[in-house]
Amino acid sequence: MTGFTEDTSAETVLARLSECPDGRLSEVMSSVIRHLHAMVKEVEPTQEEWMTAIRFLTEVGQMCDERRQEWILLSDILGVSMLIDAINNRKPAMATPSTVLGPFHVEGAPELPLGANISRTDKGEPLLVSGRVLDEAGRAIAGAELDIWQTSPDGFYDVQQPDEQPAMNLRGRFRTDKDGVFHFRSIKPCSYPIPTDGPVGKLLTGMGRHPYRPAHIHFIISADGYESVTTHLFVEGDEYLDSDAVFGVKDALIVPFVLHPADDGAEAYYTVENDFRLCTAS
Amino acid sequence: MTGFTEDTSAETVLARLSECPDGRLSEVMSSVIRHLHAMVKEVEPTQEEWMTAIRFLTEVGQMCDERRQEWILLSDILGVSMLIDAINNRKPAMATPSTVLGPFHVEGAPELPLGANISRTDKGEPLLVSGRVLDEAGRAIAGAELDIWQTSPDGFYDVQQPDEQPAMNLRGRFRTDKDGVFHFRSIKPCSYPIPTDGPVGKLLTGMGRHPYRPAHIHFIISADGYESVTTHLFVEGDEYLDSDAVFGVKDALIVPFVLHPADDGAEAYYTVENDFRLCTAS
Repeated sequence: MTGFTEDTSAETVLARLSECPDGRLSEVMSSVIRHLHAMVKEVEPTQEEWMTAIRFLTEVGQMCDERRQEWILLSDILGVSMLIDAINNRKPAMATPSTVLGPFHVEGAPELPLGANISRTDKGEPLLVSGRVLDEAGRAIAGAELDIWQTSPDGFYDVQQPDEQPAMNLRGRFRTDKDGVFHFRSIKPCSYPIPTDGPVGKLLTGMGRHPYRPAHIHFIISADGYESVTTHLFVEGDEYLDSDAVFGVKDALIVPFVLHPADDGAEAYYTVENDFRLCTAS
Repeated sequence: MTGFTEDTSAETVLARLSECPDGRLSEVMSSVIRHLHAMVKEVEPTQEEWMTAIRFLTEVGQMCDERRQEWILLSDILGVSMLIDAINNRKPAMATPSTVLGPFHVEGAPELPLGANISRTDKGEPLLVSGRVLDEAGRAIAGAELDIWQTSPDGFYDVQQPDEQPAMNLRGRFRTDKDGVFHFRSIKPCSYPIPTDGPVGKLLTGMGRHPYRPAHIHFIISADGYESVTTHLFVEGDEYLDSDAVFGVKDALIVPFVLHPADDGAEAYYTVENDFRLCTAS
């Protein structure tokens, strides 16, 4: 027997996985142990720094409840959520790329007819969203579902403001017509900060980073026989496109929101047009 | 601008540290980000596995309260606590090696005269502990303090059983005499499981590991002009010496606990003798 030493610490811990009955758990924990020990050797934390880390990790869990998931937020700001999204959604270049789901999706948004308005208040700048859902060869997919959600003009989702916004405000599900076309009305989304009142917000500030996400509309697009895609459309020109707090931006998802100025009879409004391309399910 | 990709994920996140005002935080987070992304790329977690990890990490924090620190326990069973201890306590070969403090040290244990018994009940097998505290050259250190604690014969520390054990049971502080000698009475310690009713216990079981620590007595030894050492003495022959759940064992800390069988007039008892060697403070 040899005792625990700094040089062989990872190997000593790894050897204890020899009786692990679960092959996948053994594979995962082996990677965790190797990287954790390598990181500690690189950083050489003092005992005080280690206690600071223990306190931080504890607080992240204790900030979580039914409405708040601070560990997902930590995964988001370290780019881990986007990396896992990328690994699980490798697609050909022509397909619409995926991005993070985020914490504000709600199952069962109302099914609405094409052309309906998902805004249930009179706030915000009017917006028309339109486009087509296509297959790999550019052919229309009829009956594809688009599940859509976005923030209010104040930068909050309905579920964050149950007393101030009507339920299901700025959420809806639409189906493409026989030509693969969808269109609906909404308001122009705005950039907004992720929650900063917890330990993850403090870490973000400590690292000299801002908490903003560039303005976007969320989409989950699905159709029988195709792979679903969870994605956003980002507003071209937004000041946070290069520094999204959660790293969600991909070039192909940045689209112009075109302003149509107020005219004699009509108020100003925006239009955005985008075709989504799905891959055939494998 | 280029968007987030699987290949460049770590570099994209690292680039955001450029405005970090705290050099040490930047160094630590840079190592965290690099190893975290490398680990995710190695493991390629599914979205479901990632959610399992998020739930586990959340539960570890939510298991913590004033009496329980599940994150330290996780650090312990992954060998991280021992690695940080090793990094912060590099000593010459002749010095008594350190090992983990553990969660059960209590400040202000009673100061007792040499020869006193730290057991405040009549349970357990009697033990005499003795030895010397020496410097690097093997010279006696007079007036060195030994802060000592251990479990009851049932495998619990007094603070774990406030209703069943007297306060400060099996705790005491002693000072070496002019020849550097200490001696006190106690009971033979026993091996015991770390807490298994939380997420860390489930992980340990999932990895096919047992939760036991080999029997030991804790010591913090300090003297003016010398570096303090936090360590254990382990009972030679204990069945868990090769598989301590928290990796605390070092060869130099395993010592024989010698049985002296019952005689006509006297009950059986154990003796253990060990000299500790401190380094001069730098």
